[in-house]
Amino acid sequence: MIKRLCIIGVGLIGGSLARALKAAGAVREIVGCGRDPVRLQRAVDLGVIDRYTEALSEGVRGADVVVLATPVGTMEPIFRELAPHLVSGAILTDAGSTKGSVVEAARAVFGRLPAGFVPAHPIAGTEKSGVEASFPELFQGRRVILTPLAETDPAAVAQVRRMWTAAGAQVEEMEVEHHDRIFAATSHLPHLLAFGLVDSLARRDPEGEVFRYAAGGFRDFTRIASSDPQMWHDICLANRTAILQSLADYTRDLAELARAINDGNGDYLLETFSRAKSARDRFCSTLEDMSDPREERS
Amino acid sequence: MIKRLCIIGVGLIGGSLARALKAAGAVREIVGCGRDPVRLQRAVDLGVIDRYTEALSEGVRGADVVVLATPVGTMEPIFRELAPHLVSGAILTDAGSTKGSVVEAARAVFGRLPAGFVPAHPIAGTEKSGVEASFPELFQGRRVILTPLAETDPAAVAQVRRMWTAAGAQVEEMEVEHHDRIFAATSHLPHLLAFGLVDSLARRDPEGEVFRYAAGGFRDFTRIASSDPQMWHDICLANRTAILQSLADYTRDLAELARAINDGNGDYLLETFSRAKSARDRFCSTLEDMSDPREERS
Repeated sequence: MIKRLCIIGVGLIGGSLARALKAAGAVREIVGCGRDPVRLQRAVDLGVIDRYTEALSEGVRGADVVVLATPVGTMEPIFRELAPHLVSGAILTDAGSTKGSVVEAARAVFGRLPAGFVPAHPIAGTEKSGVEASFPELFQGRRVILTPLAETDPAAVAQVRRMWTAAGAQVEEMEVEHHDRIFAATSHLPHLLAFGLVDSLARRDPEGEVFRYAAGGFRDFTRIASSDPQMWHDICLANRTAILQSLADYTRDLAELARAINDGNGDYLLETFSRAKSARDRFCSTLEDMSDPREERS
Repeated sequence: MIKRLCIIGVGLIGGSLARALKAAGAVREIVGCGRDPVRLQRAVDLGVIDRYTEALSEGVRGADVVVLATPVGTMEPIFRELAPHLVSGAILTDAGSTKGSVVEAARAVFGRLPAGFVPAHPIAGTEKSGVEASFPELFQGRRVILTPLAETDPAAVAQVRRMWTAAGAQVEEMEVEHHDRIFAATSHLPHLLAFGLVDSLARRDPEGEVFRYAAGGFRDFTRIASSDPQMWHDICLANRTAILQSLADYTRDLAELARAINDGNGDYLLETFSRAKSARDRFCSTLEDMSDPREERS
């Protein structure tokens, strides 16, 4: 049981974690922290948090667990602000989509990483944002990756693991660099491609004619382009090396496909598309079963 | 009322059209044509068609409307085979995703385009294929684009329009080239990108580790990579000029995004992502409302 949980950033992720832990009876009190009192009050009104404060120093005071659920670009200034107020023995964890940059930010602020700092990434979310979009089942059956370091106290890891398990997630551990490479490929690159495609089409067609003829395939393909721009701006800069590597690999493969189309090399196209279909059908069948809890809610 | 409808290719599209027209009481008899008697018998057993024949000459004989619902690459040989047997005054239409190539195939076979030939493209489908995946509501509320030419008999256009309206679709007309440019951008390019991404990841990771950590965003983004490889092979070759142009525009814009990430140009990223989100939220809100009938069926 967490006695006092401080959530910094009560949006989709922070709000859903709060709801899930309350529903599971895994927390006594939740204090929300943020910069917008209107939204924080809304989170109180919705019963997501018990109270809020705009002062990090106050929010962190007396909290046994502090969760940062803000865009990854804000983590360094937040670490800097909360560092003097962190109770000795308190657990500090985050929900950022990149881990190298968060660890780097913590090192920059704390020097030696605090033993109670557990970098974490819940693999869940929707293209919606804000506390209104939060719901307690968001993490049900989803993975949460912890990337503890040599300095991390195993007891802190165990505590964070218990927290996410109580929220319904399956917890795994991974090395920081491995994490950032995997998510560059399966999450950051697709978001970049989707944002890029929609903007590319929209700029060439200000009336949006092409979108009028889009079908379900386009709707699904571009759904992630409705995600929060600030969050993805932060991620692209935070994980730039791995993303650029992933994009370079992909662009090279795409150029091969373009060459095959240009040359009328049907065999190449058919082989590529068949391999892709078979990989997706094989690897993503579990994803299809694991339908989006958001879809079930409507 | 169509007296005898011949559907060549009784798969997802042909089968769904048959089911929709039967449900609407808009057709007296449906004859299926194809190369696989097992699948055709299955279509009879499912009540999708009334009877079948493997001989095009027999299927086309006495049909007042003939619909080609096969991959676009097969249309020229099929035109060639059915040409001698087409009843004078019969209407010939197709359901191909590209229109320039189909018109070109018809010209190659018939010389002057038959007055009863109405090129058409129903903007509907799922990543599934085969008659088992067909269902009568597939075209409900979806658009069907007709691209009649100077040679086309307006009465034939009206008849095909009535057929698709009976199937629940909204029918529009468009010029062939305009059609091919629009669908290169909103359909063909996204399919190429999705197939390409899944194959690019799968080839670098034969164990499929990256897919294990994929979330709902990746599932949606890559859903179209589970589409029929042969069909998309045909489309890529059939609409190659427009697709290569669309891909070139996109690749150029993507290179700008890569440069911005590399240079840490956050403003450029934030502006691009914000424009994309706003375009998608604005233009695709109707798509979100128009939920996939397939999803409603499960």
